[in-house]
Amino acid sequence: MNREDMYQQVTAFWNGNMPFNQLLGLEITRFNAQKSEVRFPWNDKLIGNPIQKILHGGVTASALDLAGGAVVVANIIEQLPDVTPVTIQQSLKKISTIDLRTDYLRPGRGEEFIVTAHIIRSGSKVAVARMEMHNELGDHIAFGTGTYIVG
Amino acid sequence: MNREDMYQQVTAFWNGNMPFNQLLGLEITRFNAQKSEVRFPWNDKLIGNPIQKILHGGVTASALDLAGGAVVVANIIEQLPDVTPVTIQQSLKKISTIDLRTDYLRPGRGEEFIVTAHIIRSGSKVAVARMEMHNELGDHIAFGTGTYIVG
Amino acid sequence: MNREDMYQQVTAFWNGNMPFNQLLGLEITRFNAQKSEVRFPWNDKLIGNPIQKILHGGVTASALDLAGGAVVVANIIEQLPDVTPVTIQQSLKKISTIDLRTDYLRPGRGEEFIVTAHIIRSGSKVAVARMEMHNELGDHIAFGTGTYIVG
Amino acid sequence: MNREDMYQQVTAFWNGNMPFNQLLGLEITRFNAQKSEVRFPWNDKLIGNPIQKILHGGVTASALDLAGGAVVVANIIEQLPDVTPVTIQQSLKKISTIDLRTDYLRPGRGEEFIVTAHIIRSGSKVAVARMEMHNELGDHIAFGTGTYIVG
Repeated sequence: MNREDMYQQVTAFWNGNMPFNQLLGLEITRFNAQKSEVRFPWNDKLIGNPIQKILHGGVTASALDLAGGAVVVANIIEQLPDVTPVTIQQSLKKISTIDLRTDYLRPGRGEEFIVTAHIIRSGSKVAVARMEMHNELGDHIAFGTGTYIVG
Repeated sequence: MNREDMYQQVTAFWNGNMPFNQLLGLEITRFNAQKSEVRFPWNDKLIGNPIQKILHGGVTASALDLAGGAVVVANIIEQLPDVTPVTIQQSLKKISTIDLRTDYLRPGRGEEFIVTAHIIRSGSKVAVARMEMHNELGDHIAFGTGTYIVG
Repeated sequence: MNREDMYQQVTAFWNGNMPFNQLLGLEITRFNAQKSEVRFPWNDKLIGNPIQKILHGGVTASALDLAGGAVVVANIIEQLPDVTPVTIQQSLKKISTIDLRTDYLRPGRGEEFIVTAHIIRSGSKVAVARMEMHNELGDHIAFGTGTYIVG
Repeated sequence: MNREDMYQQVTAFWNGNMPFNQLLGLEITRFNAQKSEVRFPWNDKLIGNPIQKILHGGVTASALDLAGGAVVVANIIEQLPDVTPVTIQQSLKKISTIDLRTDYLRPGRGEEFIVTAHIIRSGSKVAVARMEMHNELGDHIAFGTGTYIVG
């Protein structure tokens, strides 16, 4: 199985088997080592502030964490000498978020939200990713940085 | 109306009208200017990693942000010269999270999760809160720092 | 006096009157609202780890904080209805760093270090800047995010 | 050599051989796995803002990073099966700061500054420390969180 097929399988598994992502409507729409992407549509249940009708800050943090984790996993897979379901599974088991910083720039309003993640550091023990969230109009709503254990 | 009654009303309003907190099962169980608290029970829909069966990092960030916001709001109310529903409403409109850092210490496992928040800085423009999350066994799962616009 | 001249005067004042920046050899080499820049040469006194001969992490944090503060101040000046030495002085008095996150990507080695800062959020109370540090070879050594009170 | 003697030797080496710490006047005054401490006196050369006569934010970040690194190193030493100069040296070589967050609470004024650090997470790959800085009057000037690679 080539790397591209493997990426698609991981994405499908991830999107179909992570309860909290499904609860929020988060979907990985791009998954590779250079750039990963998560999208989700507006939904009233994601409202944090009922007066202002904007996203809860935790929704934004969740989407950033997922996008960052995705680009980190894609990097791990790319560095595997042997890409098989077993080695991928082993890699996924080792990843966990150490810390996540979210910077909120504008109120979370829009019809769709797009989070992109880039890898900044990809070591054998620790990886760091930067994330940005925009809405469908291109408004820059948030950005963040995530540090992940990978080894 | 005295301050204590006002706190209870704000808590009741908050717990009953914030869709995302209800979706996750987050409840403000203590609300005052010294220390605020949020609790939520384990629920399979909060799972982030289906293999490890642990909380999604975004759940933790959501709970920390809520607890931090609560203690900040309680501080604003305490500083109000005149506590009325109108002045409270005005105060609540002005608060928003600037940035949130979450440090993940242990896997999010347990039957119940308790987040406490203390105020660290309470200025006229910006407030800072520190938060900690434990499970019902006292395991320290996460901590964090939130910076909020208040003025 | 036009804005460009004012920028140059602020830069000259800043570079000539901030003891800690002079101690470290930090110099503001670009100062405007879109992008500010700080440079400093390698110096043995900046070594943190004598075995590895790399910059102390605090040097990097200092340079990032300065570059972030500079781009924030340039933004404040740009928004002033009336740019005079008095209004600039008043603006500078109000700015202070709320929080600073530094991410260390590679060991701090090189002959010269260049920190650039961009503004991410420029509000009436709070501004946020992102910073990057490279060496003269283009190696990406660190990045960071700073949140500043401005009002 | 027992652990206590070893701690003293590491402290003496650290205080006597790190150029940047000496430039700033930072001294490790307590070094153990539960709590480490760094102290430094006021010095005009540490001024960041000449109008307000307060510490540069980078001084605070430097002191926090040092105190955090010290408590992390003490934890590594405590976990060594065999404490010798060679194993200590090997441990010190592996430690590096991944990220550092500094929260500035009050202007950096005082005659002496005391930074304490506690370990929050002590894993085989990554350690996390929390730090606080007070002046000699007990004013809480800053706190922070540092994440370190240790393995």
